Amino acid sequence: MRTESKELSPQQARAQFRAGLRVPTSGFCAGWTQANLITLPREHAYDFLLFAQRNPKSCPVLDVTEPGGTAARLFDGDLRTDLPAYRIYRDGELVEERDEVTGLWRDDLVSFLVGCSFTFEAALIEAGVPVRHLDQDRNVPMYRTDQECRPAGALSGPLVVSMRPMPADQVATAVRITSRYPAVHGAPVHIGSPADIGVRDLDAPDFGEPVEVRPGEVAVFWACGVTPQAAVMRSKPSLAIGHAPGHMAITDARDGEYLVP
Amino acid sequence: MRTESKELSPQQARAQFRAGLRVPTSGFCAGWTQANLITLPREHAYDFLLFAQRNPKSCPVLDVTEPGGTAARLFDGDLRTDLPAYRIYRDGELVEERDEVTGLWRDDLVSFLVGCSFTFEAALIEAGVPVRHLDQDRNVPMYRTDQECRPAGALSGPLVVSMRPMPADQVATAVRITSRYPAVHGAPVHIGSPADIGVRDLDAPDFGEPVEVRPGEVAVFWACGVTPQAAVMRSKPSLAIGHAPGHMAITDARDGEYLVP
Repeated sequence: MRTESKELSPQQARAQFRAGLRVPTSGFCAGWTQANLITLPREHAYDFLLFAQRNPKSCPVLDVTEPGGTAARLFDGDLRTDLPAYRIYRDGELVEERDEVTGLWRDDLVSFLVGCSFTFEAALIEAGVPVRHLDQDRNVPMYRTDQECRPAGALSGPLVVSMRPMPADQVATAVRITSRYPAVHGAPVHIGSPADIGVRDLDAPDFGEPVEVRPGEVAVFWACGVTPQAAVMRSKPSLAIGHAPGHMAITDARDGEYLVP
Repeated sequence: MRTESKELSPQQARAQFRAGLRVPTSGFCAGWTQANLITLPREHAYDFLLFAQRNPKSCPVLDVTEPGGTAARLFDGDLRTDLPAYRIYRDGELVEERDEVTGLWRDDLVSFLVGCSFTFEAALIEAGVPVRHLDQDRNVPMYRTDQECRPAGALSGPLVVSMRPMPADQVATAVRITSRYPAVHGAPVHIGSPADIGVRDLDAPDFGEPVEVRPGEVAVFWACGVTPQAAVMRSKPSLAIGHAPGHMAITDARDGEYLVP
């Protein structure tokens, strides 16, 4: 399964999700960039873009649709059907998880594709840094922190982070590699000491699944593109649609396009 | 003069500009980030942020004020008085250049600070790459190209570039260094062959001043933060205020904050 999903093209993977496959996308489509989705009514679009500008580590915007648009420059598919799973928020409440959202689409909905840390995982593996959730065939663990994002208009909320545990002697390598991908969350925001950012129990993530942390390993935290959904929960727009955490949009952009320098 | 201006703090430099000093800021306040200014009515702010997202090399947004705001997180001064010179556009026409714009300020004006390539010039010099306009004590030459930016809503326009000539054997170093500053235009967009991007005469820049290009030297072009002003000219908002090209906002952010990795 892992090997096969890794070798799919974005078009092939999107066709499988459209046909009903509902799995986390970590490890899918090697070399192709994955993205978080957040879809909002046009009236909230400026606040969201400003929120993203003010919180670039958690909300690096890769692409924005026209109002009502179902495709994007980086996503030559259908945003309503081609992700594995969606979350629907009404007035800030998560009301439903679905595998397509065609019936909810409106002419005034603007969709934002936000960079995802899955993009740099292949580079970590290549450098010999373990990616535990891939090794354990699980979704990545994600946590709501006690760190506030910079607000923008009606939008405010906590920073959400993803976590990858690793031996202490590989942390510097992980920092070096991921620093080179600023458009997909870049360098870690926090290394070790989970309690310092309000993460009390690594085994109880707020999103995704827990992974094994071995004795002596360090928990390394990256800003996460689920942050916009946490802001939506706090800020209560009438309607918002996001991907189910870990179940990403697979784009037609190459990972290498986001590599600096 | 050069040495003195280099050693000023942002606060000191802003006080001099507020008092009437009207000079290009290249070389000012070593180590402190300089920024382009574009101020627009709130109704155009979403289009501008989207334009910036779609044209990140020319329009890397560093900060955005609240409507009516005269300071920004990165700029602890007065945006109406603390730049050396301003340009006023009405319905897309450049109608005036002034040294302060207090009388024009309105509660609905949103100001955007956009990264400036002056930020990486100190790093170029340190690496032994010549910065000719500094050596000649001139404003940097800037050119309107025939390359279109990706439009956003009502905003469209040509890419504007700055140019630095250098010996061929230093071009690779200049690329390597500036690639590490993606938030302030990053790597060059074009190297050599000015005619390919519609630049017919290096000695007749559209903004700034011409500089000497020595025999055998290569013209290296970077995306330039005057691009928003070119879009304003095309797109004709009722009012827009920008800095006079080369006469930048000197911010309270350190150059190093924009260095990747």
